[in-house]
Amino acid sequence: MSLKGILGLGAFSTQYYLGEIQRKFKVRNKEFSTCPYLLYQIDFQEINPFLPNQFAVLKPKIESVLNEILSLGISELLVPNITLHETLDKIESPLKLFHPVKLTIDYLVKNKISKITLFGTLYTMNSDYLKEKFSENNIELILPSEEHQIWLDNFRKKVFDQIQTQIEIETYQNLIIEYSVQNPVVIACTELSVFALKNDSKCIDMADLQIEEFLK
Amino acid sequence: MSLKGILGLGAFSTQYYLGEIQRKFKVRNKEFSTCPYLLYQIDFQEINPFLPNQFAVLKPKIESVLNEILSLGISELLVPNITLHETLDKIESPLKLFHPVKLTIDYLVKNKISKITLFGTLYTMNSDYLKEKFSENNIELILPSEEHQIWLDNFRKKVFDQIQTQIEIETYQNLIIEYSVQNPVVIACTELSVFALKNDSKCIDMADLQIEEFLK
Repeated sequence: MSLKGILGLGAFSTQYYLGEIQRKFKVRNKEFSTCPYLLYQIDFQEINPFLPNQFAVLKPKIESVLNEILSLGISELLVPNITLHETLDKIESPLKLFHPVKLTIDYLVKNKISKITLFGTLYTMNSDYLKEKFSENNIELILPSEEHQIWLDNFRKKVFDQIQTQIEIETYQNLIIEYSVQNPVVIACTELSVFALKNDSKCIDMADLQIEEFLK
Repeated sequence: MSLKGILGLGAFSTQYYLGEIQRKFKVRNKEFSTCPYLLYQIDFQEINPFLPNQFAVLKPKIESVLNEILSLGISELLVPNITLHETLDKIESPLKLFHPVKLTIDYLVKNKISKITLFGTLYTMNSDYLKEKFSENNIELILPSEEHQIWLDNFRKKVFDQIQTQIEIETYQNLIIEYSVQNPVVIACTELSVFALKNDSKCIDMADLQIEEFLK
């Protein structure tokens, strides 16, 4: 079988990726077209308590999931969760991933961008994972102010719970505009992708890069 | 593998079923739990132009899809489209379906309901398929007035296009209330399920019966 695979994780982020895949697919194809794929939905409660970095638990769990997916004949897999890619990087697998960090670095190198501001969870913004990956490619990673980091982390939790207000959405979008005056803003969290500026070269969304690659 | 399967069809109805499955699953389980399953998403454009009843085309296409699903080790399959079950009934397959018509008849028999009013597409309301199935089980199927049939068919198309207004939603819910004074109303169309009355014994939703059985 030549179907592309998707690993189903948290209900919110999985639904967002699936919705965006079908929305974009429909624009490019006719009438009632839907993008074919195989979604392997697991119980996210098996994974989430150990995110972002309890690798001793996460690694064997995810290895077992990847083996199940391989046994279904899948060779290309979209993982709709940026954080989990730190675990995926520690696993040897023949699966081709639509890797958000690699895709972002490729995009930045191609567009000669050597400095970006990162919007993500508090953990993602402050861990070494992205910092090192970007640094290896001579890309400098700038963080928002501490106050804005905390605000962004609270906002993404509100989006997850679907309790964000219109004013908060506008505040968020204004933060992107404000920070992107200096350097492009890179979005590294699905909940922040939902209300990120679309079709704006100063706002680079990891989820969007994954979805575009998936649809190629 | 013992995963339950879902056949991905139209983007709207598939997303509705997936959303409802995860919403109900989360209420019954803790924190970030998500219901595990395998979703086999096909290109709906391969099927939709031949719905509801071009069986000479639909039958071999669906047979081939069911064989692919069986080869993945799936033995129980949810099909998030009521209309397609008329085609499925013409196919021999070892797959256990969460069959909306059978589940509805079981529910009506169990609850000693022998007369219902059907809300569905114009095709569903007027075809012999449901009429015969219900009649075999001594259940009388009543239709809304012609004017209301046309209104319901237009409304479900608006829901599909996501252009329904709040007034139309209220008109629809009032129609359910109005007709259910005489007999329970059975909803046989995913777009009509979205705004159907929930937890109301006078409003029996085929999609909801499918989802409840899937979650057992």
